Amino acid sequence: MVWDAWGIPAGHKPLSAQIRGLLGQVFGVSGEPVARRDEGDVPLREPALSSDRRAGLAAIVGADHVSTEHRDRLRHAGGKSTLDLLRRRGDGPQDAPDAVVFPADHDQVLAVLAHCSGHGIAVVPFGGGTSVVGGLDPVRGRFETVIALDLRRLDSLIALDPVSGTATLGAGVTGPRAEQLLGTHGLSLGHFPQSFEFASIGGFAATRSSGQASAGYGRFDDMVQHLCLATPGGTVELGRAPASAAGPDLRELFVGSEGTLGVITEVTVRVHPIPETVAYQAWSFPDFDTGAAALRTVVQTGAAPTVLRLSDEVETALNLARAGSIGGDAVSGCLAVTTVEGTRAHVAARCAEAAALLRAAGGTDLGEAPAREWEHGRFAAPYLRDALLDLGVLCETLETATSWGNLAALKEQVTTALTEALTAQQTPPVVMCHISHTYPTGASLYFTVLAKMLDDPIAQWLSAKTAAGDAIMAAGGTITHHHAVGADHRDWLPDEIGNLGVRVLRAVKQEVDPAGILNPGKLLP
Amino acid sequence: MVWDAWGIPAGHKPLSAQIRGLLGQVFGVSGEPVARRDEGDVPLREPALSSDRRAGLAAIVGADHVSTEHRDRLRHAGGKSTLDLLRRRGDGPQDAPDAVVFPADHDQVLAVLAHCSGHGIAVVPFGGGTSVVGGLDPVRGRFETVIALDLRRLDSLIALDPVSGTATLGAGVTGPRAEQLLGTHGLSLGHFPQSFEFASIGGFAATRSSGQASAGYGRFDDMVQHLCLATPGGTVELGRAPASAAGPDLRELFVGSEGTLGVITEVTVRVHPIPETVAYQAWSFPDFDTGAAALRTVVQTGAAPTVLRLSDEVETALNLARAGSIGGDAVSGCLAVTTVEGTRAHVAARCAEAAALLRAAGGTDLGEAPAREWEHGRFAAPYLRDALLDLGVLCETLETATSWGNLAALKEQVTTALTEALTAQQTPPVVMCHISHTYPTGASLYFTVLAKMLDDPIAQWLSAKTAAGDAIMAAGGTITHHHAVGADHRDWLPDEIGNLGVRVLRAVKQEVDPAGILNPGKLLP
Repeated sequence: MVWDAWGIPAGHKPLSAQIRGLLGQVFGVSGEPVARRDEGDVPLREPALSSDRRAGLAAIVGADHVSTEHRDRLRHAGGKSTLDLLRRRGDGPQDAPDAVVFPADHDQVLAVLAHCSGHGIAVVPFGGGTSVVGGLDPVRGRFETVIALDLRRLDSLIALDPVSGTATLGAGVTGPRAEQLLGTHGLSLGHFPQSFEFASIGGFAATRSSGQASAGYGRFDDMVQHLCLATPGGTVELGRAPASAAGPDLRELFVGSEGTLGVITEVTVRVHPIPETVAYQAWSFPDFDTGAAALRTVVQTGAAPTVLRLSDEVETALNLARAGSIGGDAVSGCLAVTTVEGTRAHVAARCAEAAALLRAAGGTDLGEAPAREWEHGRFAAPYLRDALLDLGVLCETLETATSWGNLAALKEQVTTALTEALTAQQTPPVVMCHISHTYPTGASLYFTVLAKMLDDPIAQWLSAKTAAGDAIMAAGGTITHHHAVGADHRDWLPDEIGNLGVRVLRAVKQEVDPAGILNPGKLLP
Repeated sequence: MVWDAWGIPAGHKPLSAQIRGLLGQVFGVSGEPVARRDEGDVPLREPALSSDRRAGLAAIVGADHVSTEHRDRLRHAGGKSTLDLLRRRGDGPQDAPDAVVFPADHDQVLAVLAHCSGHGIAVVPFGGGTSVVGGLDPVRGRFETVIALDLRRLDSLIALDPVSGTATLGAGVTGPRAEQLLGTHGLSLGHFPQSFEFASIGGFAATRSSGQASAGYGRFDDMVQHLCLATPGGTVELGRAPASAAGPDLRELFVGSEGTLGVITEVTVRVHPIPETVAYQAWSFPDFDTGAAALRTVVQTGAAPTVLRLSDEVETALNLARAGSIGGDAVSGCLAVTTVEGTRAHVAARCAEAAALLRAAGGTDLGEAPAREWEHGRFAAPYLRDALLDLGVLCETLETATSWGNLAALKEQVTTALTEALTAQQTPPVVMCHISHTYPTGASLYFTVLAKMLDDPIAQWLSAKTAAGDAIMAAGGTITHHHAVGADHRDWLPDEIGNLGVRVLRAVKQEVDPAGILNPGKLLP
């Protein structure tokens, strides 16, 4: 990925003249492109890695796999939140890890952690680099040195059991590579978060990722059958069976541990045959509440499609549900998108059942096209954010989840909090929202916020983010549905799991990482 | 429940003359009924509860709710494993808690735990009393006194959200009471383990129970949305949303903690409308492997019915899959049972899809009757065990789970281990097995073992159980799929989660229960 924006240059997505005009009208932005720094010009502090320490790391992974190169350090300087990008667009120096270490396998990771634990070196595990919550910030904590532990070399298909439908993948395997490795065996993982193109298997597990096909294939945490982690205290292997009653499920303690309790090196995941067929269907609902009730009926009846999404009125009007076709034909009301994948018989049965329920709940069938357009453009949104920032429009997203009964209230309160916090800064925002993940008892809410960018956009956004987070907690939502805690949500964790819950996590960390080298400043307040 | 057998006297199930004759031929048992002790005659040691300690407990829950009565102590002396029943059928004294305490609510539980933590009193949380793994043994650990904390007074429906499909139930609510409380609102929990008639919501959560409708409604751990526990360290409340990425899922740490990390007082669970209709269908497969492959296809395709079971050849021949109709018409090959529940449209679609898959995989449709018979008799098996023990036939069950690819090997190795261990004692057994819980990646195996009882049946069974547990671990299964760890599986826990995993659990326990009063001798080796 490029150092100061999302993705690869070829993915860049200029805004249409129509959208630029609209944004100019709404926010009064000029549209002058901002000059970007050449990455070679970005000042970094001298790497604080003594030759002894470097030699110690090189002895484990090989000298070629310990880098203090400016380029490597800069590209491991954090994730891809709007705050990250704004910091990189600024003039100031960038914080960066002192070195980047590229281990080859589990045993090397284990040895690196033992070395770092013994020598007081903080370690930030690094997968695809797509965190949007500060999960990759090169925080030193109480240590002098921090390294990024880049897992890209753990990129193979380690084992495959097509009968059971499981595959063991290295933590560094990216989304596309997983599909490629499995595809040669006629299989698919079916995990398609917006970060799919870059994010890694280890990262998906470490952050409880949830993909766009979660209605059909579940969240990534649901897919994980077995987990292998390296910790300073040794190896942890968890998950002997699809389900077990052998005490607490420690898989669920290490899944979502965001690099603070260990480094995930291998994950055995549920896979499925590449679908025989995929059916696409889009729907229009007169308003968000009607649409949400329709989605609820579908998932509570057990007829959930593979993809099940609903954009609110604003998102539908801006057509951002179909990022690939911004400026295309508008859809009135609220747009819902479904896909159903599987065998022909399964798709036929499921489509018929879901369609009957959606129609009975007030949906108007829009045919296939809007659903196909959504799929076509589904990884484009982060690129659009860069184009918006270029234009002087602050753009960020945040997400939460709650029960169906609380969904409308939570949506309203978060929208109000964002609107008030930005309006108070004389930058009234456009706030839009969609449901992207549904469960029998509730759903996620994914907000996108646009506002005219102020001179200090970091302070501007932090004020809005704090208001939104406080509103989420006050309204009974979770502080994050699929972006993880990282540094940015850390202060809300006691509200989420209670003070005793935080103490439990600290006790676990003390056991597996007594020196406290693993990803300082993340997850735990 | 009666003190020395399963269930209530009215449920007792005499064996048919045909089965008695068959067992006489196979095992050479005479059929003379065994004299049972009157419970008043069973010697218990004097209750080790000082008047100070008693007064302290009475000050919290009221004097009427602290009992040292012989009857109360005896009925809280443990669970209902075959070992438990054999011990009660023996002549020796029974171990029993020194007192039984009946708190009224969460705050009283919290206060009792604080009191016991401060005064060195071990606490065994007690729900329905149906543990089959020694989870309720009144172990004192390093303390002089042990109490049973009976949660039966926490028996109400605390909150209901019919839109979200969630209900908050007190930990002491039993299976039938849950259905009754929810039924008045047109709702059902749909959790039907064999212990359904007596076991409690708190117990289901503490032991990761799995019900017979798990293919449709999931395991109990899947149903849990929110959990409230009392610990000596304070209250823990977990689960703010249907799904979250806010770090490790601590719900999954406390679910399955078997009373060692806290006392579950309230559980918010997923519920669903009472089904409009239920379809029953039974199938015959020529052999177990063909049947297992058929079930696998159904669940991997996403067409899983609500109930999906398969008995092996021996179980089918003995007709024990249909405990309500032992001695009825035999089914050849292997019997599979399906039910599908829900709306009429859902049931029709799902039945058609599943039936087509089962037929294509070699199944012969047997119509509704055997499936209805299975349902009718599905809670009868534990009563049959008593009748078998009366007849001099040792009878016990055990369960495990593994991936589909490993299922046949695990089944064979456990069967061999049980057969060899009992044959070495000159009591060759009958070992039968069924699949009762299916997942996309694997399934459970539930074994029932019958053998002629020796003079020391406890030693006889322990030898077989040890061989089976070792075989399960060697063959890659989990030591328990839905019966929990308790005392009986404790020594296998390091094989299950590793030594570091055990240390993590100890660290958590130290944080929430520093005095170590909670359920000593269970879960942790």
